[in-house]
This record gives sequence, structure tokens and C-alpha cells, in this order.
Amino acid sequence: MTDSAHIEPVTGTSETERSYGVDEALVRACDTAMDEGRMEAVDALIADLHASDLADLLEELAGDNRRKLLDHVRDQLDPELLSHMDDVVREDMLELLEPAEVAAVLTELETDDALDVFEDIAEADQQDVLERLSPSDRALLEQAMTYPEDSAGRLMQRELVTVPKDWSVGNTIDYLRQRAAVLPRDFYEIYAVDDERVPVGTIPLSRLMRNQRDVPMDDIMLTELRSAQVEMDQEEVALMFAQYALVSAPVVDVDGRLVGVITADDIVHVIQEEAEEDFLRLGGVQEDDFYEAVLDTTRSRFSWLLVNLCTAIVASLVIGLFDAAIEQVVALAILMPIVASMGGNAGTQTLTVAVRALSMKELTTTNAARIIGKEVIVGGINGLLFAVLISGVTWAWFGDVQIGIVIGAAMIVNLLIAGFAGVTIPIVLQKMNIDPAVASAVVLTTITDVVGFMAFLGLAVLVLL
Amino acid sequence: MTDSAHIEPVTGTSETERSYGVDEALVRACDTAMDEGRMEAVDALIADLHASDLADLLEELAGDNRRKLLDHVRDQLDPELLSHMDDVVREDMLELLEPAEVAAVLTELETDDALDVFEDIAEADQQDVLERLSPSDRALLEQAMTYPEDSAGRLMQRELVTVPKDWSVGNTIDYLRQRAAVLPRDFYEIYAVDDERVPVGTIPLSRLMRNQRDVPMDDIMLTELRSAQVEMDQEEVALMFAQYALVSAPVVDVDGRLVGVITADDIVHVIQEEAEEDFLRLGGVQEDDFYEAVLDTTRSRFSWLLVNLCTAIVASLVIGLFDAAIEQVVALAILMPIVASMGGNAGTQTLTVAVRALSMKELTTTNAARIIGKEVIVGGINGLLFAVLISGVTWAWFGDVQIGIVIGAAMIVNLLIAGFAGVTIPIVLQKMNIDPAVASAVVLTTITDVVGFMAFLGLAVLVLL
Repeated sequence: MTDSAHIEPVTGTSETERSYGVDEALVRACDTAMDEGRMEAVDALIADLHASDLADLLEELAGDNRRKLLDHVRDQLDPELLSHMDDVVREDMLELLEPAEVAAVLTELETDDALDVFEDIAEADQQDVLERLSPSDRALLEQAMTYPEDSAGRLMQRELVTVPKDWSVGNTIDYLRQRAAVLPRDFYEIYAVDDERVPVGTIPLSRLMRNQRDVPMDDIMLTELRSAQVEMDQEEVALMFAQYALVSAPVVDVDGRLVGVITADDIVHVIQEEAEEDFLRLGGVQEDDFYEAVLDTTRSRFSWLLVNLCTAIVASLVIGLFDAAIEQVVALAILMPIVASMGGNAGTQTLTVAVRALSMKELTTTNAARIIGKEVIVGGINGLLFAVLISGVTWAWFGDVQIGIVIGAAMIVNLLIAGFAGVTIPIVLQKMNIDPAVASAVVLTTITDVVGFMAFLGLAVLVLL
Repeated sequence: MTDSAHIEPVTGTSETERSYGVDEALVRACDTAMDEGRMEAVDALIADLHASDLADLLEELAGDNRRKLLDHVRDQLDPELLSHMDDVVREDMLELLEPAEVAAVLTELETDDALDVFEDIAEADQQDVLERLSPSDRALLEQAMTYPEDSAGRLMQRELVTVPKDWSVGNTIDYLRQRAAVLPRDFYEIYAVDDERVPVGTIPLSRLMRNQRDVPMDDIMLTELRSAQVEMDQEEVALMFAQYALVSAPVVDVDGRLVGVITADDIVHVIQEEAEEDFLRLGGVQEDDFYEAVLDTTRSRFSWLLVNLCTAIVASLVIGLFDAAIEQVVALAILMPIVASMGGNAGTQTLTVAVRALSMKELTTTNAARIIGKEVIVGGINGLLFAVLISGVTWAWFGDVQIGIVIGAAMIVNLLIAGFAGVTIPIVLQKMNIDPAVASAVVLTTITDVVGFMAFLGLAVLVLL
């Protein structure tokens, strides 16, 4: 399965075959129509779009036309549109809208989607919007905002159906029929709760339909409940869904009482978000800035590059220690980046696997020692192999067997250190409560650069001079 | 929102608070019991574990004990156990089992889970297992294997409930009651199909329960169907689920006939897998080798490092062109890694955002020119800022204003190129049908190294010598 680093063709269908979303012809047609001020043509183009596709179209339009279209759809605003937008575009839209308009949107959305939109309102405007909501909607939002950011409490929807656990199938069906008007529009299962509103089981509707009226709910409910606590981090909730292949999970408060429900379609977004976060951070990007303006992007990238500049200067200071050696043997300057680069890459491989394993809770204190041992051995073996290769190349290039031996020895040292540091750094950072995805890469390359230059140039001084 | 590169505390609950999965005390207790050969103690420890947690426990155990426990659970094998295992451990388990045992497991699983397990059976043994299945199970698996790997056809389950579209609520309820024995155990919605078995709508069970017997299904079904074609890539299916916040989607064959259904809980795994793939590949790792043995890991990492060795040698060849200059001014050797490193990091930032945007279908041919323009400007502005910084540092360090100007100019050039290459490389690779996540990083760092050394050393020769 892992024979070789093969370059795979992309198997996804090409853009022309996309079976969802907006196609590029539509984006271009819309762009042109707006440039020419033909808004009726725009109306015709967007008339049948799903709110989510209209959100994509807005994201793909450039600055001026994006604002123009935002302003144009404002009159017959589909509340779902705001819930499907990318954060950056949503903030633009929210700035454009009056508090009363935002309040109207929030009223129409389900609690979890409403909260999602509300979180993106500028803090100064949140109070204005809240005051325009009905007391019950307002209370729901205010309560949800008391839960920690990215917690189960913020992710859950409040709309759900519960019945006392001692009811029969008949009681439940009658209740559903009588309360049809106030129940959620669509739901897929019912929760049985005890007198304290603690969930004790869940009943998929298919079981309700297939049983006789006198069967007690007790007999047909699934009792292996996996509930999330309101304060549980959404990443944790997502891992729980993946672990048990859940379709939905009840959310309980600190006293174990049922307060909401999270469904797998919400989790799809959480997993996308969390994976994106790790992915971007490991690449030195704090947040997805794809739709950000130039200056915001420049500023957010700058901070990371500044850290990198400092570490690069540290590496240069190490080289500076050996200036006399480099003046005597210029081949050292030519070869030294190779050792540093190989260490950086080998370390990054290890680091990538380790950061992923940490976030999937696969790398734990139980197996840490074993994994570190494994990575050091992998580094050692590859170090030996590449030592032989680079020694040969160097010998052939400079006709000097001693430099060949020096660079080979430095390669082994740096790949051993890279394997060790690649696992150890993220573990230590996590213990220090620092996100390993953010900080690991810069610490690692500083180490592999410093060790790479130090080992190669230091050994060279000992052996050659 | 993107003010600065701040180092965030990890907000996830700590390991001791985990509300699912196996805790480390259990792993250690199990490990010790097995070392001491007390298998009754092991039985007690694992008695109440969910299949998914037992799979985790097996993954966390080291080599010998993992095999011993696999062998131990074999007698009362829970079919779900195999469906929850990590690929690497599952292959170990499958090698251990007789074809008849594997066939018994497959029979118990739902079609999508059975297929998942079947795909991991060594090819030589697949036929043996197929022969031991019932004709109908065998036909289902064989048909599923004709769909492309990672396609909707492989992901879907065949178990679903359909009714003719001209039925009433009463017809449907009677049908469900009569056929209770052969219908799937739990299901959440029903598909209405026409005479050709083409899906025309979906009816959540909650709608069925709340309507009178004489209401036609036509009136209460949701007609905005988002179906996946059997050959659609799973990544595409996942994006469709995310786009429309779907809970489930029908799968149709080439003639549009309903053949299966995909649910959001399956998509959770797809998104995890696809995100992992991109994440690991950008870090130079082909497949998750966390549970692989040392030699397999070493081999799979080697190929990537070999590619990197070649590009590092190319960069060294470029430095070699300027050996005379370096002999005269040793400061050049000391400073040159800074320009290359900053280019590599700035390029990686851009690349990371671009690869992510490509895989989310946000970066398209419509907006490519705009994004390239943006990244070049970001690179230019940061290039200017860092040029000023590094010029000052260099001047202070070496007391030579000319070297300062040279390194500043090289910094601007390299950051401009990095911004341009960071977007362009993944787009071009994708057009060439090469996975941008695999190949982008190595192409990028080759370019930023070569340009970095060439610009800095070349300008130095022009200005200083």
C-alpha cells in the first residue's frame, strides 16, 4: 500500500462535470451583466439558484460587483443565503444590512444557523439586533452565546422532539399528530426522557411506524446513547460522531438534562473547518484568507514571516561561526544547504504525521515513547541511505573523499534529530497548551537548520582543517 | 479577525476528560494483563467496549500484544469491529482470518461497510471469500467492485425504502407495516420513484406521520433532490453534502435509476479521509503511516526525500556558479540561506491557501487571474517590508550598506516570485492531472531556492565585484 511516492492523477470529475454549485459560465455571465448595469438579466440568472449557490456566486464575484449584488438581493433576502455564506462575505453583507433586516433573517433560521450568523455581526451592532428579536428568540441566542466558542452548545439546534419514557407508541403518535403545528418541520428521531429531562433512549421514526400502538417506547428505543455535553469542544464532538458513525447526538447541560441535538450534517462542516485549520496553520497561514482583501492578507502573513526571518537569522549566525572555514573551502558553502534542507523535509514528514495523529487523538502518552523510537529509527535508516548517496555525489563532484564523509556523517546526525524533533516538538507544544499545528513547523526548521549547519560545518572544521 | 499570528491555546478538552474512545489507563491495563498472560482479565476489560473502541484499543497496542488480542477476539468476532478498524490493523486481522470467517463477517454488515472491509482483503484471497457468500451478497459486492474506487457507488448502501410516486400516505404506511421484516432496520426517509425507478422526491418519516391517510405522497414530498451519480468521486459527493447541508442523498445509475443512498455519517469519514490526504501529502507523506511498521514507513518516506535530495543538489549547483564571489565575500555564504528560506515560507503560505481553495473548488479558472494578481501584490508588499528589515540587519551586522541593498533587492524578487509560483504551480499541476497536494511543495521550494540564490548571489556579483 505504501510502496513508493507515486504521483497520482486527480480522480475528481473536472469542473465542467460539476453536478452542484455555480459553474463558471454563470459567474462570467453575471459579471458581464452587472458591468453593463443590466440587473434584470442578473435577476434571470440567479432566479433558480439555491441559497448556497447564490452565496458561492457572491464569493466568486470581484469587489465592486460583489457589493452591488449584495445590495441588489437585499430586498428579497433569503435568510438561508446568510447562513450559507463564507465568513468574510457574510461580514460584508451584515455591515450592509440594517439591524431590523438582520433580526428578520435570524427569526427565520433554525437556532444553530441563526447563531452562526449572529456570531459574525460586529460586536457593537449585536445589541441593536438583539433588541429587535422576539423575547424567546432573543433568550435562545443570548443563552447560546454563553456557551464557549466552538462548543457543542453553539453547534446544537434547540428544535427537537421528546416524549416521557413511559409512554407507548400510541401515546407518541397521538402527541405528534396533535402538536404537528409547533413541532419542527422535519425530524428523524425522537428522544425518550425521564422526569428530570435526562435522555434515556432514542427512537428512530421507522421503529415507531412499524410497531403496534400498545408497545411501550421502552421496548423499542435504542439505549446506547452517545451524548455531548454543552461545553464539549466541537472538534471532540466531531471525533465522537466519526468514532461511532452517529447520525445525530443529544446535547445535555451540566446536570445531564437534554437541551438540544446535533446532526451529522452540522458535523460535516465542523470537520471541514477543523481540517482546514490544521492544514492552513501547518502551512504558516492563520486563517483562510482566500476571500480577504490584499492588505488584510498581507498583514496576517507578515507576522508569520517575521518569525521565520528571526529563525533564518539564527541559522545564519551559526554559519557565521564558521566563516574562516568557508573562506578556505568554498565547497562547504555550496553543500551546506543540502544537509539543512534534507533535515527540514524529513522532519516535516514526521511532524505532519504526528500533528495529524495528535488531532485524531491517536498519538497519546501511552504510545509516545514507541512512536518517538520508531521515528528515530526511520530517521537513522534513511540517514544512512542518504549519507551513502550524498557522499558519492560529493566525492564525484569535488573529488574529495573527506568532504564526502563529512557531509554523510552530518546527514545521519540531522535526520536522526529530525525524526526525534518531528514527534517531540508537537507533543511538548500540546502539553504547553500551544496548538502544535501553529508552532511546530517553525521550531522544527530552526532545529534542523541549526543542527544541519552546525554538524556539517563543525565536522568539516574537525576533519578538514 | 486576522490581525496577527497569535499562538492560541488548545481549547480541546484534555485527554482525561474524553467522553468517548478508550482511555490510556485501559490500554495500559490491557497491555499488562496480556504480558502476564491473564486473558480472563483482558476479557473483563473489553467486555463492555463498543466495537469502535475495541478497534482503537487494538490500534494502540504494540505489535505482539496486538496480534495476540486479534487472535483472542477472533472466536466471538463482532462484525462491526472490522468495519471500525484502521486500514493497517484491519489488514493484519484479515490475514489472520480464514475465508469462511471473513465471509461470515461480510454477511452481517451493511453493504457499504461490507465493501469497505472487502476492499482490504488481499487480492489473492478475495475470490475465496466471495465463493463463501450467498449468491445475492456476492452479486452486490461484485457489482459494487465494478464502480471506480472512491466513487459514490462504493460509498452508498443498497438498503433503502422506495414507494411509487402515485401512492398515498395510507398506501405507504400499510406497505411499511406489511414489509417490516424485510425493510432496513432503521431508516429516516422514503424515496418516491417513477415507473422507471427514477427518484422524484423524498419524504422524511416525520411528514408521513403527521399527514392523513388520503394525502398523496406527491403533496408532501421534498422535490429538490440532490442526487449523486454512481461514478461520482467521493470528494465531489462530500462537497455536495457540505454545499447543501444534506442529511442523505440518493445515488442513481447512468440511466438515472435509484440504486442506493449515501448518508451524512458516511460523509464524515470521507471528509476526514480527504482532508488527511491533502494534509499529509503537502507534508511529503503519501499515506498515513502512523500504524505502519518501521521498514514500510522508511521506504515510503525515502522516495519523497530522494526527490528532495535532487532539488537540493540543483540549488547547490546554482550556488556553485558563484564560488568565486563567495570566496571573495564570505558574508554572501552566511546570508544566502535567509533569502531562500523567506521565499520558501512565503511561497508555502500562498501554496497552502491555493491547494485548499482548489480542493474546495473555490479557486477556478474564473478567478485564477485575480488571485494570482492578489498574491503577487501581497508578495510585493511583504517583500518591500522585509527588504527594509533585512537590509538594516545586514548593514548593522556587516557594516556594509551595499550588501544590505543587494539582499533587500533579492528579497523583493524572491517574494514576488514566491507569490506568483505559489498559486500558479498548483493550478498548472491540476490542469496536468497531477495532485497539487503531492507535487506543489517540491516544485515551489526548488523555484524559491534557485531564484533566491540566483538573485542574491547574481546581484552581489553585479554590485559588489
